Amino acid sequence: MEPKIIALDAMGGDHGPSVTVAAARLAMDEIPGLELVLVGDREPLAVELEKHGRGNDNRVQIHHASQVVDMDELPAVALKKKKDSSMRVAIDLVKEGRVQACVSAGNTGALMATSKFVLKTIQGISRPAICTTLPGINGHTQMLDLGANLECTPENLAEFALMGSVLAQSVEGIKDPSVGLLNIGSESVKGSESVKRASQLISESRLNYYGFVEGDDIYKGTVNVIVTDGFVGNVSLKTAEGLAAFINHVLSNEFKRNWLTRLAAVCALPVLSSVRRKLDPRRYNGASLLGLNGIVVKSHGSADTSSFMNAIKIASLEIENKVPQRISSAIESYMEQVGEAVT
Amino acid sequence: MEPKIIALDAMGGDHGPSVTVAAARLAMDEIPGLELVLVGDREPLAVELEKHGRGNDNRVQIHHASQVVDMDELPAVALKKKKDSSMRVAIDLVKEGRVQACVSAGNTGALMATSKFVLKTIQGISRPAICTTLPGINGHTQMLDLGANLECTPENLAEFALMGSVLAQSVEGIKDPSVGLLNIGSESVKGSESVKRASQLISESRLNYYGFVEGDDIYKGTVNVIVTDGFVGNVSLKTAEGLAAFINHVLSNEFKRNWLTRLAAVCALPVLSSVRRKLDPRRYNGASLLGLNGIVVKSHGSADTSSFMNAIKIASLEIENKVPQRISSAIESYMEQVGEAVT
Repeated sequence: MEPKIIALDAMGGDHGPSVTVAAARLAMDEIPGLELVLVGDREPLAVELEKHGRGNDNRVQIHHASQVVDMDELPAVALKKKKDSSMRVAIDLVKEGRVQACVSAGNTGALMATSKFVLKTIQGISRPAICTTLPGINGHTQMLDLGANLECTPENLAEFALMGSVLAQSVEGIKDPSVGLLNIGSESVKGSESVKRASQLISESRLNYYGFVEGDDIYKGTVNVIVTDGFVGNVSLKTAEGLAAFINHVLSNEFKRNWLTRLAAVCALPVLSSVRRKLDPRRYNGASLLGLNGIVVKSHGSADTSSFMNAIKIASLEIENKVPQRISSAIESYMEQVGEAVT
Repeated sequence: MEPKIIALDAMGGDHGPSVTVAAARLAMDEIPGLELVLVGDREPLAVELEKHGRGNDNRVQIHHASQVVDMDELPAVALKKKKDSSMRVAIDLVKEGRVQACVSAGNTGALMATSKFVLKTIQGISRPAICTTLPGINGHTQMLDLGANLECTPENLAEFALMGSVLAQSVEGIKDPSVGLLNIGSESVKGSESVKRASQLISESRLNYYGFVEGDDIYKGTVNVIVTDGFVGNVSLKTAEGLAAFINHVLSNEFKRNWLTRLAAVCALPVLSSVRRKLDPRRYNGASLLGLNGIVVKSHGSADTSSFMNAIKIASLEIENKVPQRISSAIESYMEQVGEAVT
């Protein structure tokens, strides 16, 4: 097996090195052939590595970077003024071919802007998109875009369908993933003109197009890939986060009501813990920035070790499956097909 | 107290008279001064009323209508060919002033189209919207639009803010409801031009404007009113429905795993039932069609008795609080204010 080399923006996220280095150690234990480059402030990273007994592990090295992109920094400012940030340098390493992927828990806007600037968009793809895995009754769904593109043309949505399909093949191992287009009714007469036109485009492609899906299909797992614009995708994802927090709040309160319910809580604890584990968003942490000439995975800013580790796993799967190259050939053959249809 | 007279589309919804008549009986028991007109096929309605021992109750009467709008009927078709449907006749009764509100569990599109056609939109309001109550950690939120308007101008969104605010005052009794505009980030630089412009319009109005909110603010209950376009509102609502179903599915499965977990389920049952009751969407059933010259409340098609009864309650609160009149004066004073600002 060829080695897989991933750069970690070791300073990014709410917790910085304490999480990224711990996750690095876990990932090296779990993923065969993995090598890591920790990008960031050399000294604290060396201390952290030493703590985990990996000071002399030749599968991990530190690459110094003197700056850090703040979580609320404007993408344009980060791009201009943070050329030696851990985020920027990690992406530069991808560009230079010194690593095959990078993972960052930093500021999403800055990560997308810097990745686009440094790595450039794959020829034929108009706009990169953010895609993540969501759990559901009948299985996982890859959903995109989650916020990179607020307004999308039908052509953008068709490209997202293609990229999401490649990701579902790569990360989930699904041969011919079914693709649904998010709409407010499953009947073909519903929806805006733009969504209807996107539906037509996707149905004419070689993708396994299911048709329109609705919001409740996301957590049903009706299809393998759900496509929508970044505004709707982001609101939908955050709505789910909010509802999960609310349900959790109600559950905790009800179990704390009196000594009887506290006793019930003790009995139900193993089951509830198992439910929490199953629903734990950390298991699904790691959103792929698709459509770039390189692999970039975004971890949630508040990710803990196991959660950040999952983002590393996703980057590793994308390397194994050569996701950018597959997207590139998929868009090429799509363009040929569209070209043929026109001539 | 003046009597409140509400027409029920007694044939609408998945269950028809078995639910609507049972709910009618419950509502008359619970809401003082309530009178009901059951609109639909006279004979089965009479039988159903008799079953509930209300054959001779002078607070309820049957108004015959010979047709029923199908759940999947196109709004234009319903409007043209179902002039004697229970839905249409119930709305006609509002128009004629013979009742003060109507409640229907029928086809949403047909209900909105027919209501707009018969009752007309309030002067100054460009488009009616659908608004519902959602529960949250810090209290209830009125959210609109939920699907009547797929694409909205900033002016539409500002009108929704005003209408939602009136509804929160009326249904929740909140004096000066806080209003949030749904966006993909709370920073003022984020979002589409249209959302930014809407934000400016609402902030210039006399409403208690909170600013941008995100998807997770919905079930946090961050604000009393959340405004968005019908596409985003519908997807968000259905995402929540799907996630709730998924969580329920995981919970049930985990509790059924083995005899130990089944035992835990028995212990936890009272608490879980109480949680289910708290989260039960039936408690919040009843979406208001706002911006019409008359009160129309839409019940979920699959509503059961207690759920349909809740929709009747909302209609009753809207009558007490004269919602259409209040929206009308609010938009008038808003127009004056805008006019002043211009001159």
